[in-house]
Amino acid sequence: MQYMPVTSSMFLLAETREQPMHVGGLQLFVPREGQSATELVEEVIEAFSSCAEVHPLFRKRPAPPVTMLGNFAWAYDAEIDYDYHVRRTVLPRPGRIRELLRYVSLSHGALLDRYRPMWELHIIEGLEDGRVAIYTKIHHSIVDGVSALRLLQRMLSPDPDDRSGSAPWDPALVGQKRPRPATSLRERLSGLADTGLQIAGLGPAAVKVALAGVREPDFVPPVSRAPRTILDVAIGSARRFAAQQWELGRLRAVADALDITLNDVVVGMCSGALRSYLVDQDALPDSPLVAAVPVSMHTDEEKDGNAVTAIMVDLATDQPDPERRLNSVVASARQAKNVVRGLRPLQALALGAANFAPLAFATIPGFVQYVPPQFNIIISNVPGPSEHLYWNGARLDGLYPVSIAMEGLALNITVTSTAEHINFGLIGARAQVPSLQRLLTHLDTALEELEKVAHVR
Amino acid sequence: MQYMPVTSSMFLLAETREQPMHVGGLQLFVPREGQSATELVEEVIEAFSSCAEVHPLFRKRPAPPVTMLGNFAWAYDAEIDYDYHVRRTVLPRPGRIRELLRYVSLSHGALLDRYRPMWELHIIEGLEDGRVAIYTKIHHSIVDGVSALRLLQRMLSPDPDDRSGSAPWDPALVGQKRPRPATSLRERLSGLADTGLQIAGLGPAAVKVALAGVREPDFVPPVSRAPRTILDVAIGSARRFAAQQWELGRLRAVADALDITLNDVVVGMCSGALRSYLVDQDALPDSPLVAAVPVSMHTDEEKDGNAVTAIMVDLATDQPDPERRLNSVVASARQAKNVVRGLRPLQALALGAANFAPLAFATIPGFVQYVPPQFNIIISNVPGPSEHLYWNGARLDGLYPVSIAMEGLALNITVTSTAEHINFGLIGARAQVPSLQRLLTHLDTALEELEKVAHVR
Repeated sequence: MQYMPVTSSMFLLAETREQPMHVGGLQLFVPREGQSATELVEEVIEAFSSCAEVHPLFRKRPAPPVTMLGNFAWAYDAEIDYDYHVRRTVLPRPGRIRELLRYVSLSHGALLDRYRPMWELHIIEGLEDGRVAIYTKIHHSIVDGVSALRLLQRMLSPDPDDRSGSAPWDPALVGQKRPRPATSLRERLSGLADTGLQIAGLGPAAVKVALAGVREPDFVPPVSRAPRTILDVAIGSARRFAAQQWELGRLRAVADALDITLNDVVVGMCSGALRSYLVDQDALPDSPLVAAVPVSMHTDEEKDGNAVTAIMVDLATDQPDPERRLNSVVASARQAKNVVRGLRPLQALALGAANFAPLAFATIPGFVQYVPPQFNIIISNVPGPSEHLYWNGARLDGLYPVSIAMEGLALNITVTSTAEHINFGLIGARAQVPSLQRLLTHLDTALEELEKVAHVR
Repeated sequence: MQYMPVTSSMFLLAETREQPMHVGGLQLFVPREGQSATELVEEVIEAFSSCAEVHPLFRKRPAPPVTMLGNFAWAYDAEIDYDYHVRRTVLPRPGRIRELLRYVSLSHGALLDRYRPMWELHIIEGLEDGRVAIYTKIHHSIVDGVSALRLLQRMLSPDPDDRSGSAPWDPALVGQKRPRPATSLRERLSGLADTGLQIAGLGPAAVKVALAGVREPDFVPPVSRAPRTILDVAIGSARRFAAQQWELGRLRAVADALDITLNDVVVGMCSGALRSYLVDQDALPDSPLVAAVPVSMHTDEEKDGNAVTAIMVDLATDQPDPERRLNSVVASARQAKNVVRGLRPLQALALGAANFAPLAFATIPGFVQYVPPQFNIIISNVPGPSEHLYWNGARLDGLYPVSIAMEGLALNITVTSTAEHINFGLIGARAQVPSLQRLLTHLDTALEELEKVAHVR
């Protein structure tokens, strides 16, 4: 048995049936020349099931008794029930992307079993375009979203002729240098925990803010500019997932022309799309939406580090003009980043914890109804691989994050990059976020608007 | 909004992530002459989706706010999200029964969303034998197991040429006489509730026994002969489902030769199979297992009535001789039924409630560890259709109940009849009931033993 850090516990404690705390990833592969989708699927299953050893990360689970100790300590299974964790599935005809997204939507709403290692991997065939999909879900207490995507990449190779494809849980893959697994939030915080600083920096800050919230009925959290929106509601467990990719070159051209970051362009697209979506729904608030944007505290040398705190960005959704809207968003993000840069790392961590504190209360019935929201949506940009990657010659063609919707945060947008694309994954509470897929069209329109602002099209 | 009877509330209150309280059914259909499985699936989907109206039973859901009021009152949705509730799916190759049972196992462990009507219907293709399966799950707060199976039958016809096949939620089907929907437990109790007797008869009896159990650490429930077994354990949410059918004629021959009931033969088979299984697992207790067997309080004229109370049957698993074992089981069942017959209906209901009272406490951590079990397993025999039934000419070829495993009751056996078969559905907690499928072999062996005892083979 091994006690877990508070950053793991919080995801187990905050989890309810309406708010599963697992993150997911959807990978799409193009079979290699001359290989059918079914042959690729069978090759994957063969390789995965013949992997004799399983990395401890994939064998750990909440310690028994699960209902009491399980939120605070890990146990390790000696073996895994392969037939349970690895699921082969076939899409119904016609096998469009629509059927794939529907499968992910329905699977992502189901809780993971706490009596076994909390992950699943679904190998999906039946796409009419001949590709093969892999959908994974893994509990946020085990890895954060960034590490989850990296775990999947560990089994891939930049060499299309490499035929040593193995399972992501193959212990032999750990330590190999090809697609470098970045230091995860977990690992970073564990390092801090060794010096006792983790608890000092993260725990009490969140707990203090949190306790104040419970004790004082008229308590106002430190930041509270966010308006009430249709996204700040209680949610059911059913999910809707939508995903689409855009050429990285298009976003980069906008960023270069305007001397802003790629992430500014991503947040700018979300800002425009959310405004259009809320107008559609006749639910645009007078004051602008606020997004929580996780940011890295790493210096530029460690470009692929993980997000370890969050800044609050004014999305300027009240602004109809695309250029003015983008300027507001960029200015707000810069200002917030400057505040974070001025903090020592632990202070930044604590700020992040305070910003996120209300999440811990989402399990208290009715909580979202009387506490003013600090932000309306989380927009994450998770760095992905910068080169083409392959599994036994099958090319990774798309990589979409499937994140977490929560009570009071009914929609989440998470974005990741692949060699030539930016991949958007939108997850929303199915009954509470109507017409989620229309956001994809609005994102497309928003990018076109930004291209006009930047005069690159 | 409509307040719900206590018999509905108890299934919502007792539900946890490890103990979903929905019941299921697995139907297998043979496409009509000249029709492919895919054609049948598409015909079903077309008919289901073109059903304009939806019966209120399929539109009701826990009233908002779900976390507070939702356990005690119903709300009704105006429309249903068809794309969510009705799921077309394809089995992976080779499409054996094994792949089908695996699909049901994995689906049955997932909770239903309380923010929408609590049911799902999965239309499953890809079986190598050319049949089409329909797996349904519906929350026990909405219907009991018997009514759930009847709901499915409502859409079927005894006429193979009937082409008016509709969806089970078609309001036009209600009141039609073909496969007569029996009075459900719910309907019966609602009738009682009108006179205020339901609360008097069921609620307080369970509550009184239950409260005593909480207040007195050394409280002994009214019946407590059952030994500790490997089935009386805390369980995870993952399930394993196994199913098999036997010819009704074989069981009837045994019953007739020995002058016992068909249900005696079913319980006798379970008794023999459980003994062999526990011997396999090196876990046979010295004293015999006790089964809770729901029984009907209807008179013989209403043969297809529902189970409304439960008797405790000594399974004589300590007895190695098949003949002696069967005799003990039959004698125990007769005695228990005589007790029930001597009671007035409300007293019988109260006895059933008291017998089942500990179930309400399964959500208290560690409860199963210190309260002695009153029974080790629930064995239900749900009457099914006595004639061949068809949906647009596709013949119903198998009908398997998928019931509920609970903390302390890690295995459940539910049986139903079709025109020529007895169909066994076994549902168990996946990690806690090892090698569940071996019970099918043991059931087969047990039937052969009983045939020898009855000299019919």
